[in-house]
Parts: sequence; C-alpha cells; structure tokens
Amino acid sequence: MEFGPESAEVLQQILRWRRDVRHFRTDPVPEDVLERLRRSMDFAPSVGNARPWRVIRVRDASLRLAVRDEFERCNQRAADQYDDATAAEYRRLKLAGLDAAPVHLAIFTVTDPTEGRGLGRQTMPATLRQSTAMAILALWLAARAENLGLGMVSILDPARIERLFDAPEAWEFSAYLCLGWPEFTDDTPLLHRVGWQEDQPTEWQER
Amino acid sequence: MEFGPESAEVLQQILRWRRDVRHFRTDPVPEDVLERLRRSMDFAPSVGNARPWRVIRVRDASLRLAVRDEFERCNQRAADQYDDATAAEYRRLKLAGLDAAPVHLAIFTVTDPTEGRGLGRQTMPATLRQSTAMAILALWLAARAENLGLGMVSILDPARIERLFDAPEAWEFSAYLCLGWPEFTDDTPLLHRVGWQEDQPTEWQER
Repeated sequence: MEFGPESAEVLQQILRWRRDVRHFRTDPVPEDVLERLRRSMDFAPSVGNARPWRVIRVRDASLRLAVRDEFERCNQRAADQYDDATAAEYRRLKLAGLDAAPVHLAIFTVTDPTEGRGLGRQTMPATLRQSTAMAILALWLAARAENLGLGMVSILDPARIERLFDAPEAWEFSAYLCLGWPEFTDDTPLLHRVGWQEDQPTEWQER
Repeated sequence: MEFGPESAEVLQQILRWRRDVRHFRTDPVPEDVLERLRRSMDFAPSVGNARPWRVIRVRDASLRLAVRDEFERCNQRAADQYDDATAAEYRRLKLAGLDAAPVHLAIFTVTDPTEGRGLGRQTMPATLRQSTAMAILALWLAARAENLGLGMVSILDPARIERLFDAPEAWEFSAYLCLGWPEFTDDTPLLHRVGWQEDQPTEWQER
C-alpha cells in the first residue's frame, strides 16, 4: 500500500480542523455514521492487540443528567482553585457540550484484559490507557472527517462516574465524550482564541 | 470547513494500513519530512491546550545501545513470566525494530506543565498522559500517510529510561518510538497474523 501526497494533505487538514467541540446542534447522528465511527476505534493501536477500551453509549436521560450534575460540581470546585480574576475568566469558558450533544459516550479502560496475553505491558501497564486514548483520537478524527464534532469531558470524578455506571471492578473511567454536529468550525483551539492558553509548539530536543 | 466523502475514505485507509512496524529499512528519513511530522504532533488534542509531550530525538549511538540493552533485559523477563510453550511462542515474536530504524524518539510527559493553567486535569491528571498518547497517534498517522512506519516500544522500565536520559523530575517516560521506511506494508496486525492475539471488535453497550 503506497499513499500519494494528497493523502498526507487530507490528513493534515483533518488534524488542523479537529477541535474539542463544546457547541453542538441537537440534530441526531445517523446510525450508519455511528457504526463507521465505532469501527474506526478498532483501527487504533493497542498494546498486545488487546483493544482494552470499553464504550457505553449513554441514552438514558437520568444518567445523562447525573453526568451533567457531576460536571457542574467538579467545574465549580475547579474554578474555586484559582484567584478571583482567573476564576472569573475560568467561569466564562464553556467547557462541555453536555446539554445539546445528541450522542454521549462513556469510555473506560479494562485494566486486566485477557486479550493480548499481557504482551507489551508488563513494565508499562499505562500502555492500556494509552491504547484507549489513541482509540478516542481515532474516533475523533473519523468524526471530524464526517463533519461531526467531538468534545472530551474530563472535569468529572472518575470514581463517581464508575459508580454511576456500575462499572466492573477492572474498568477504569477514561473519558466522557460528546458527539454531534458542531455549531461552527474553526482551525484554532478555543482556549487559544479566548486567551486562556496560546498554542506553544513543542521542539524536538536532540541527544 | 466542510470535508467531502473522499476525506473520510482517505482517513479510513490510513487507519487501516497503520501498523506497529518492527521491520525497517535503514535509509535515512529526510529532515523536511521529519519537520512535517513534528508539526503534526502539535495538532493533537491536549488538556487545557497544555501540549505536555516532550520529545528527544536520540542520535547518540551509545544512548541507542543502552536503550536496546534495556529492551533486551525487559523482554527476557517478560518471556520468563509465561509457561514454557507460551514463552517459546513469545520469543519468536519480533517486538522492536531498534537495530534498523533510522530515527529514534524518546517521548515523555510533563506532569506539572504551567501551560493550560491546570484546566481540565484537576480531577483527572491522567489527561496529560492521554494528551501525549494522542500526540503519538497523530505522529503515527502522519508518518503512515508519508509511507513511513512507526513502532512503539514499551518493553522498557520507565524509571531506568528516565535516568538514562537525565529527565527532569517532572518528566514521565511515555514511549520509545522507532521511525523509518517499513520493509513491507500490511493491513492486518502482526500479532493477529502470527496467532498471538486475533482482532476482537469492541461493541458499544447501550444504557
């Protein structure tokens, strides 16, 4: 398999126009699109080919409400950590699209999968969590290429979310994802645009 | 920005033909290609826009040798954990391309970055490590689209690698990457093809 230069260009555009979306329209996402997105996660790298990510599609209104309440609680506490001026700035940020996003996904990592037979993770068990993070990015990019937006919500207490979803003992909460059609598209991170944190390139050191 | 259906198709092809490569040719990778790959990492999502990944390009022969020795040591110990038949099967696997790959990258995560001002990680500090994992996948896909291969080596002791590279206190070792032109391309994971772990699709549960 040999890719031509236009493939690298398409990928760069998808990477450049991917955003953490918090502003969603409420229109539903067709099931065939969701099925393509589901399959894209299975193309993510995973340690030992273990595919340790577990996905719960959250449709129950009371569960969604409980997650939103938990986000509000954690977000308040996060704001309280800052000095007054920064807290005011923080409170003006919109950090989740939980109300409008039509699709909610709770993502977990199995910390003792039989799949993979332990390969590659004996000295670095964190590779399981890395695999899940990569599966989320595979989904994120596939969603962007379908003109969908995805937002990753981390302002949540993992232990509480695990209890809320009655997660099996070996499941560790990884992220809560909002998915849907974005209200607008942008090639600049919102946190850069609003002045919270500008883009800082990472140089490669040499040794 | 609106993507046409061909963009999603190109991304699916890149995802499908991405592999963890352990068989490299030794030809060098041009510097302008490496510069494009470096920039692709900066398009990865990161918590609070913190971009917590740090990259060391390892050119020093004695450092490379020390990493290879550490891999051999950990790989021996990993094999010893299995019963005899499985250990024999394990030892037949080629799990790293450290000898031939022209480019070596040691990837770390800063666990207390000032960038991002703590946003999004107060309840989930693991989001920093997730950000680094996603930056690695952005690099991996960008490399694949340039017909390069990448292999992620995790059979290493993180504390020893941190000491080897004199990593600052707040840097945590995330992965060691081999990069170069692959000896062959494949749309099936090597661990599936050789019978170590077949591909298992992840179904989405509903709640």
